[in-house]
This record gives sequence, C-alpha cells and structure tokens, in this order.
Amino acid sequence: MRIGVLTAGGDCPGLNAVIRSVVHRAVTHYGDEVIGFEDGYAGLLDGRYRPLDLNAVSGILARGGTILGSSRLERDRFAAACDNAKELVEKSGFDALVPIGGEGTLTAARMLSDAGVPVVGVPKTIDNDISSTDRTFGFDTAVGVATEAMDRLKTTAESHQRVMVVEVMGRHAGWIALESGMAGGAHGICLPERPFDPADLVKMVEERFARGKKFAVICVAEGAHPADGTMDYGKGEIDQFGHERFQGIGTALAYELERRLGKEARPVILGHVQRGGTPTAYDRVLATRFGWHAVEAVHRGEFGNMTALRGTDVKMVPLAEAVTRLKTVPADRFREAESVF
Amino acid sequence: MRIGVLTAGGDCPGLNAVIRSVVHRAVTHYGDEVIGFEDGYAGLLDGRYRPLDLNAVSGILARGGTILGSSRLERDRFAAACDNAKELVEKSGFDALVPIGGEGTLTAARMLSDAGVPVVGVPKTIDNDISSTDRTFGFDTAVGVATEAMDRLKTTAESHQRVMVVEVMGRHAGWIALESGMAGGAHGICLPERPFDPADLVKMVEERFARGKKFAVICVAEGAHPADGTMDYGKGEIDQFGHERFQGIGTALAYELERRLGKEARPVILGHVQRGGTPTAYDRVLATRFGWHAVEAVHRGEFGNMTALRGTDVKMVPLAEAVTRLKTVPADRFREAESVF
Amino acid sequence: MRIGVLTAGGDCPGLNAVIRSVVHRAVTHYGDEVIGFEDGYAGLLDGRYRPLDLNAVSGILARGGTILGSSRLERDRFAAACDNAKELVEKSGFDALVPIGGEGTLTAARMLSDAGVPVVGVPKTIDNDISSTDRTFGFDTAVGVATEAMDRLKTTAESHQRVMVVEVMGRHAGWIALESGMAGGAHGICLPERPFDPADLVKMVEERFARGKKFAVICVAEGAHPADGTMDYGKGEIDQFGHERFQGIGTALAYELERRLGKEARPVILGHVQRGGTPTAYDRVLATRFGWHAVEAVHRGEFGNMTALRGTDVKMVPLAEAVTRLKTVPADRFREAESVF
Amino acid sequence: MRIGVLTAGGDCPGLNAVIRSVVHRAVTHYGDEVIGFEDGYAGLLDGRYRPLDLNAVSGILARGGTILGSSRLERDRFAAACDNAKELVEKSGFDALVPIGGEGTLTAARMLSDAGVPVVGVPKTIDNDISSTDRTFGFDTAVGVATEAMDRLKTTAESHQRVMVVEVMGRHAGWIALESGMAGGAHGICLPERPFDPADLVKMVEERFARGKKFAVICVAEGAHPADGTMDYGKGEIDQFGHERFQGIGTALAYELERRLGKEARPVILGHVQRGGTPTAYDRVLATRFGWHAVEAVHRGEFGNMTALRGTDVKMVPLAEAVTRLKTVPADRFREAESVF
Repeated sequence: MRIGVLTAGGDCPGLNAVIRSVVHRAVTHYGDEVIGFEDGYAGLLDGRYRPLDLNAVSGILARGGTILGSSRLERDRFAAACDNAKELVEKSGFDALVPIGGEGTLTAARMLSDAGVPVVGVPKTIDNDISSTDRTFGFDTAVGVATEAMDRLKTTAESHQRVMVVEVMGRHAGWIALESGMAGGAHGICLPERPFDPADLVKMVEERFARGKKFAVICVAEGAHPADGTMDYGKGEIDQFGHERFQGIGTALAYELERRLGKEARPVILGHVQRGGTPTAYDRVLATRFGWHAVEAVHRGEFGNMTALRGTDVKMVPLAEAVTRLKTVPADRFREAESVF
Repeated sequence: MRIGVLTAGGDCPGLNAVIRSVVHRAVTHYGDEVIGFEDGYAGLLDGRYRPLDLNAVSGILARGGTILGSSRLERDRFAAACDNAKELVEKSGFDALVPIGGEGTLTAARMLSDAGVPVVGVPKTIDNDISSTDRTFGFDTAVGVATEAMDRLKTTAESHQRVMVVEVMGRHAGWIALESGMAGGAHGICLPERPFDPADLVKMVEERFARGKKFAVICVAEGAHPADGTMDYGKGEIDQFGHERFQGIGTALAYELERRLGKEARPVILGHVQRGGTPTAYDRVLATRFGWHAVEAVHRGEFGNMTALRGTDVKMVPLAEAVTRLKTVPADRFREAESVF
Repeated sequence: MRIGVLTAGGDCPGLNAVIRSVVHRAVTHYGDEVIGFEDGYAGLLDGRYRPLDLNAVSGILARGGTILGSSRLERDRFAAACDNAKELVEKSGFDALVPIGGEGTLTAARMLSDAGVPVVGVPKTIDNDISSTDRTFGFDTAVGVATEAMDRLKTTAESHQRVMVVEVMGRHAGWIALESGMAGGAHGICLPERPFDPADLVKMVEERFARGKKFAVICVAEGAHPADGTMDYGKGEIDQFGHERFQGIGTALAYELERRLGKEARPVILGHVQRGGTPTAYDRVLATRFGWHAVEAVHRGEFGNMTALRGTDVKMVPLAEAVTRLKTVPADRFREAESVF
Repeated sequence: MRIGVLTAGGDCPGLNAVIRSVVHRAVTHYGDEVIGFEDGYAGLLDGRYRPLDLNAVSGILARGGTILGSSRLERDRFAAACDNAKELVEKSGFDALVPIGGEGTLTAARMLSDAGVPVVGVPKTIDNDISSTDRTFGFDTAVGVATEAMDRLKTTAESHQRVMVVEVMGRHAGWIALESGMAGGAHGICLPERPFDPADLVKMVEERFARGKKFAVICVAEGAHPADGTMDYGKGEIDQFGHERFQGIGTALAYELERRLGKEARPVILGHVQRGGTPTAYDRVLATRFGWHAVEAVHRGEFGNMTALRGTDVKMVPLAEAVTRLKTVPADRFREAESVF
C-alpha cells in the first residue's frame, strides 16, 4: 500500500513521533510505501510530497515541531478539491491518508472521508479538548511546561509577597489551566467553562494573607472571562496601531487584583512556550501508539475513523463523533481542583 | 471525623501530594481532623502520630519522599494487631484510615478492613503493576527519568559507536521498561513477562550496523531474564564478601552482547534515581485526585475500597479485587513497542 | 562571634544556598552564632531576627526564594539609622553583618560600612551586572530558563513559519539576552547597551527566508530600545486605567516586524519565571562558595568588602569598587554572538 | 582559507556547538571553506572528510554527540603520519586544522603542530581537568546531570532511612564529584586527589543519625580510593568471565558502609548519562565562544595554541602548556565543600 501522512494546524509536541511510528509500522511490518505531504493540506492539494523511509524519520522521536511542516486550511480551495476527491487521490496515488491534527484538521478529514477518500485521522491538540479520546498528545507537555513555570513563580511570589497571575493556553476549554493549576499548586483557577468573579479571588487572597501566607498564584486560561458585570476589562478596544489594546485576561486580571487588593500583582503570560519543544515521555508513548494503530486501521480498512485513547486502550472512533462538540472541563473536575486552593 | 493517614513501602513521587490533598479536602470542606501516622504501619501499631493541618502540608506538593516516613511491614506484629483491631482503632481514636502504598500495603489494608477497621486505600507504585487502576502515580515520573537518561545515552552511544544496555526498575512487571523504552527510542526492550533470547538482540544490532546505524540502545527491566538455555549469566553465585556476584541483568547482558558482537557494550543501571524527587505534573494531578476521592469515599462510608483511575474518572474498587494479581504488560502492548525497534 | 545575615532586593536563585553556607561554616567550624534578619534591611532596622542553626537551614540548598524574606529599602529610614550605627549594632548585638543583595543592597551595605558597621557583602543579581565579579549566582539559572524557552519556541516558530520575539530580563545590562540568545540560537539579539535598528532585523529575517529558513527567533532584553528615529513604539503613553500602555519592547518589536515583514511575528515575555525556582548546579556552587568566603572574611576582619569570583577564585573586593558602575556587555562579547546569527 | 575540523575522544556535550560556531564565523565573516574530518584523527589520516556549510550545521547547537563522529587514536599510525606531515596536509588541502578534544587529542595536536601542521586546538572534557583553562565545556552539563540525580536520591534516602553512595565520573580528577557533591548537598565527597578513610564516613553518618537526620548521601568520583590499609575492596580480582570483579568504588564503598554501620547503604552508578545529551546553556555559550576564537586565531596565524577561558575572557595558550599536567582539585576547594557536609 501507499500511505500518505500530513500534519496540519498549530504546533504540538508529539507530531514527529506519530509520523515516525506510522513509517516504522507501515514499512517494516507491512512493506508499505509512505509519503509525507508538505505543509498540511496545502501539500495534498498541490501534490507536494516526499517519500518517508526509515532514514527520513530517524532521530525525530524527541523533537518538537513537525518535519512535514504545517499550514492553515484554505477552506474554499479545500472544499472545491473535495468535490473532486477522486482526482485528488489519483494525483498523489495514495491508498490511504493519515491526517494528524486538531478539530479543524479532523473536520476537514471528515469532509474528505465523506467525499470518498480513505482516511484514518489522528487527533492532536495541546488543549485536550477533542471529544471521544481520554487524552491527546501534546497536552501533557503543555501542562508540564506550565507547571514548571508555576513552581518557579511561587518562590518569587513568596519572597516578594506578591500575587502572580499566570495565563496559560486554552481558548475554549480549560484543561491546561485545570491540570497545571492543580499540579503547580495554584490558589485560584479560572476556566473558559466557568465565568469567574474577581471578588472571589480577592477574598481568597485576603484569607491567605490573614493566615500568614503572604503570596498567591492564580492560574488563568486565556479564554477565561469574568462573569457579567463583575469587572470592566476593556475587551474590544482598538489602539492607534490597529491592535486590540486588551492585553489578555491574565494582564487585565492582575491589574484588577492589584487595584482591589492594594498589593502588587503581576501577570505572566506563558504563550507559545507551551506548544513547542521536546514532548514528555507520556506524549511520545501516546503519539507512537496512535501512529501504530492508525496503520493497523488502514490495513483493516476501517476508514472514516480516528484513533482515540479509552482507558489504557487505543480504539477507533468515527470522525463524525469526534468533531461535533468540544470536550470541556466538567464541574466535578473543577471541584477536585478547588479543594486544594 | 478523625481521619488517619499513613504511607508505607518504597519511595514514590506523589506521596506528599496525596497527603496534602487528603488534608485540604477533609479539613477545609468537611471540618475533619486529620492525623498522620509516622513510618507507615509501625506508627499505627505504636500509636505514633501527629496532627496534620493546612500548615503541616504547606509547600509539599512538589516534593518527593513522604513527610510521614515509611517502613517495612513487620508481618507478625501486624497480624497480631489485626486480631485486636478494635483496640488498634481506639488507641489513636480515628474514624477512618487512609493507607497509601503498594501491593504489600494494600494487602495489609485489606486485612485491617476484614478485621473491621474502616479503611480506604490509595494505590502507589512506580511500577504501575496494581490491577484495577489504569495508572498509579509515581510511574510517570519514573518513566520520565528513564526516558531522559536514554535521550542522553543515545548521543553518546552514537558518537562512540556503542551498544548501551539501560537497566530500569521493574522486578515483576515491565511497564517502566516498556514505556521508557518506547519514549526513549530503544532498539530492544526486555521485560520480565517475556524471556528474551540474546540472539535476537544480536541480530537486531547487526542489522542496524548493516543499515549504517552504528549504535543501539537496549532497555531492560531489572526483572527481565533470558529464555532457558539461551545465556549463562551466573545468577545465584555468592562471592567472598557474601554478596551475590550476579551484578544484575543489565550488566550481564552488556557483557554477553559485547562477547557475541565483538563491539563495545556498556551497562547503565539507573537505580533509585527513578523513585525519588519531584513528581511530574501528571503524577501530582493523579495523586491529588486520589486524595480527594479517598476523603469522599470515607464520608460516603465506602470502606474496604481503594481509589482507582478508570479512563478519566477516579472510581472506588474493592481492595480484594486490586491485590489478588499483578497487572503485567500484555502481549499487544509489547507488539506496539516492537514496531519501532 | 555573632553574625547577622539578611537578604534584600528582588528574588534570585541561590539566596538560600548562601544562607545555608554561612550557617554551616560559621557554626560548625567556628562555633559562631548566626542570626537571620527578616525581610531585608527592614528586619535590621526593626531588630526583627531569628536564630539560624543547622536545622534551620536543612533542606534549603535547592530551593528558590529566601527563607529570610526580602523587602525594598526604605531609604530615608535607612539613612537615619546609619547616622546611629552603633545603636543599630547594639540592638541586635551582632559582631558582623552579611547582607546578600544587588546593587542597591550593596550600596546600602557600603553606607553601613562607612558608618562603622562591620560588613561583608555578598553580591546577588540574576542580571550579572555587578562590577568586580566575573559572575553572580542567579544569572546561570535565569539564562538556563530563557534558553529552554527558546529551545521550545524554535520548533513552533519553524512549523508555523513565524518570527518569535522573546523578551528576557535585563533593564540596564544585556547579559541574560546575550548568553541565552547565544545558547538558544537566536538569530538576532537586542541589548540595552546597543540601540538597535529594526531595519537590520528585517534584513536578517528576509535573508533567512531567502535561504529557505522559514522562521526566526529574536532575543530582546527588556531594556533594549531602538536607535533614535528608527521606530515609533509609543513609549510613555498612559491608558485609561492609569497603566502605561507601552507593553514592553518585545511586544512593540513583534508588532513592528509583523508590519514591516508582512509575516506573522509573535512576542513571548518570559517575565518572573526567570528569577524563581531551583538554582542550577553552577549557581548553587557559586552561592555556597560566596557564603563560605564571607565567613572567612568576617573572621579575618576584612570588613567593607564583598565576595567576588575572579577566574576560579573567590576574592574579597572593596564594596566601594563594586557599586560605582554597572558591568555592561562589551562590544567584543556582542561580536562573538553576532557571528552565529 | 580552507579550515579542517575534527572531534576526537569521548563524548562531551558542546562538541556540535563548537563545530557550528567555527563554520558560522569562518564562512560568514571570512568567506572560508570548512571541511569536517570524519571519526576524529582517523578521518584525517584517511583523507575522509565532508564540506561543512551553514546548512550542514543548522539545528545542531543543542544536540549532544558530534555530527563528525569520533574514534580512538591509533597511536602508531598517527606517529607515522606525523613524520610525513606535509603529505597529510596536502592530501586534504587544508590551511589550518582545528582539533576538538581532551588531553589525548590535544597531545596529538601538539605533535602535529611540532611537525609543522598549522593547528589551533579546542579543549574538551567533561572532567574539567585540562590545565590553562578555567573551565571546559561539557563539565557544567555533567555536573548538572549528577546534581539532579542527587536531588532525586535525597528524598528516597530520607524516606528509606538509607545511606546512598553516588558514583560520578572522574578517573584522575575529582571536579565533577566536588561540584555536584556541593550542589547536590552531599554529606561526604571522595576524590581521586585525596584518599579517604571509610572510618571518617562512618563517623559522619553516625553523627547525622544522632542529630536526627536519618539518611546520608555520599558522592564518590570513580577514581577515588581508600587510604592504604583502611579498607579491603578486592580491586584487581578477575572473575570466571574474564571481567574484573571489582564493581567500582561506589559499589565497594556502599557494601563497606553497610557492613560497618549495620544500616542499608545503596550504590548508584550514574555512568554515561553524564556525558551525553543536550548541553546546558553555559556549555553552549562556552563552546560557541571557543569556536569563534579558534577561527580568529587561525586568521591571526596563532598556531600551536588552544583556546582557554581565563576569567571572562577567551585567550590563546600554547598547547605545550596545556597538556603537560592534569588540573586537579586543590586542597582549598575541598575545604570549601567540606564545610557543608
């Protein structure tokens, strides 16, 4: 068989581990040929690809990024190509396609599948917000980076007697904030799923100071927002340079807490550091397993599915099921975290 | 309520995170009193304990070891105490006991439970070999340490054109070897569950050298052993100092491979480094959740159980079910790993 | 003897290692008594201190922050106290004072010394900008944190074909930017010592893209600034919340580069993560040596000095010499860095 | 000019950073051609080399090992080639040679230089034992790895109430043991420079236990040895497999301490993990500077020298001076370490 692989969407530690695993299983066990499309779906549409043999994937297991490159989906061009799916497949001559990506990528994969392309998807997101899989690779690395940052910030917060507001990634789902907040020992966690009231945070900080703990760390997802009417934070204003002047919820919240508390509060925005670099062991293992199972599914002809972790097993689940709704943080997971504030 | 906590058995990253979580949930939410028995079951038998309030567990989340100490079980004394369980409970006046430990500890917990002591166990082992739970905390940290070591060894193996044999922990189950071998990109993995033939490893190394890859890394669980008749490795001999002269399977295998291959092979024994120090974010979250759910189970009166991870949920499972057999690496997990050798 | 220790100024990894070393050398070798003033000079002025024995400093070597706390210098109150130095010494009854801190702290130490207080200073700054010493502890940790961040950002920059602008600490001296930029493989470095022209950065990025390298990382000290007339970056404006709306040079430069290049450019502001947490081995060794030599200087009566690293030796240098001018990055160090852009 | 580069001797983090720096400075600034000899001096003797341009060294800064490979010196063949140095130079047509290596490599470099080959050496050793330079790259990484291991072992030693003996690298000089012992907070350090008496270690451990500290960590250089007559440790015996049965001083000392103390003592042998993998920021900067200055020296015609760190400067020192004696740990550095035992 000839199997095509591509990576699309934002960077995510573990992409290379999936590619390597697909190549190893396909080439060594099945004697397949593997080709890698360059720059995500753009390479598929253009017929830009290169052969991937064992040497091509040697030494990439622990490397961040993707050797295949990535790009944003050109929606119109993609939709047009789907109308002519047969031609798309013939241009590069593959028997199966393994797209590795997040919600957008998998939705596109589903469109291809509906158009008759033999597809097995592999879910990827540092945000851990894809339904139907217990975890996605990249998430553990992101949580690890954010946790290590909070470990460092705590000693500084303590010696300066300060409040630190750490903004982590997560626009629509708060998994990174939840788990790094728990692991980093944050005293407050704000999630997109749960509008916060700054007054609660003020109360928490004041109670800590009253108990003799002269610092606090608050972990905020970038998509978190205050409950209506609890805080004026200037979202939506545009400055003279044409950039939105809202500096993100972490910065806005730090200003607000400093104003209300009369104590120093400082924002730290972790940003892209969370989505690059060497994956953790956990993510390498999960990515490797996903690659292996994708090849197995290809050879069993189970198209229209994606790999998913369910307990300790990797299963196939329909793409349709995976992309219809976001997996958000349920209330009981927040309650667990809340108890150690 | 008055809840007693103890930690028993070998060191495991995450123990302090469980203790902290138990105290936070019990004290803050339920207004309970928590006491910590010192040095494992020894403290329970002696009535040696100290009160644990929020200050006592401040700052311990990220610290390895256990603030309560640990010790080996004195079996006879313990069995005798079980015959008089009522007295045991009255001596320290607790309403529920939360023992945190591995198979031995949980078996003892079951004995206490059978004797009428209200017990909720928390499983702990870096080996990940406890049935009924998808994972145990400590395992992710151990795998991370071993993986980082393999990352480092690979560059050295490559520049010296050497074979490296890395021995990791795992006497009866090979989970650490399996996952760190996969994550570290080992070219061979030897597990206790699956006797190995050195001839297979020789063949793999020779094929790699033939392909131009002038090095190999082999990951061996300390409990791995050769298939009958495939290798003479001197197990059981005693030297003049009264120590067993068998230096462990990693060293024995390195010698054997060097002899057969005529190439340099070096053993690296990672040892106790794998079971100490700061837990990973994953282990801190799991340990925190286990502590939280143990307190909930205590308040629901669900005694005789232990916490267990099932998919993304923490459930209660009967102690009886958890300790009857070891969770070993199944054949299909090994097949996944094998494909990237 | 009775030796007083205090830590003042911003957080810096290695402070606890100095305190521990002072206590060990003084108590074990000389049989001294050591007291620790709380919250920097504030504790000295108030006579707030606690005894420091071996137990008090047990387990703190690898911990960030300072067990003694820190605070900003109240200049007027401090100057007044200096006028009455004798009383200050008598209040707490110490024979020698070891203040650990940055330029402000050491300047204050010099005032005390001039007023007759027996002082041996220990320099501390993550910025490495104190004259008379080759290095200060804390700097290596800060550089390590910034380098690790750049390692991670590179894979993301590459897969997104982006320019990343990383802002690191360094208001007046660019040592952190210089060394983390070199270690992290930055393609441009902007230092306070050397006003930059955005046009040069634009040229560098365009040349990289022309060579097929579709990303770039630029490392900017927070105190870096454009050469006059090369870039309008809005410094000094105040927004409706009373905060300066200038978001820092990293953010301003990213916007500017995006505008000029027509390519995505993203800022990452590392912030306080650089000054907290576990010190590197290098910083622990240097801090431990400084503590040891401070005690030796006290017993030799060499007051009015501070410890300094000179080559491989720790020497005593006059406080006066150390605080008169900042140690900035010389032109030839920048030339070394420039060659690998 | 045409500059040849080679790496020889054991693995050392930072080798690739030197190669990269040489290429960048020579190609970009001087328009030189750079060639890399393969597998150390073997490639020089055989005329096996490849061109090194900017692309060839892209992405290697943070990678351990050496892209050029390494090998042991074939002394006789090398000596014979030196007799015909002119031919050696003509075969590959280089104008200057930059060998990067340890004592053996630099001694060979000196022989080449004496034979008329234009040579500028770059010193490399994780052991930090080369005279004339304050530090060598690779050392900081090795110390960092050993320190992190000790951080982890301490929590385990404490919870098991054990003595841990950690054997680190250093056959003839104890720098790694000294600095990682200080940074890791070891309670005893044994160096090759200073025969130890096990009775002193027993005393130290007993005093710790008497003070309530129920564990100890001892850091031992692999080349450390007991003072005459203080301990029988079976060095020199050969077992039935033809291997020396002496398992190293770490293991021997752990056995001895266990016997004398009647407490559990465990050896941990860190081994090759110390010499592989990603270099620390410190080592990357030093390696990059060494490469830059080597090219400068080549262009100034300062042959027969090697790069050396002196304080904060990189200087040229005669190869003759550098290789005549080993830089060992002086007594006063040990005294500094001793005070925090």
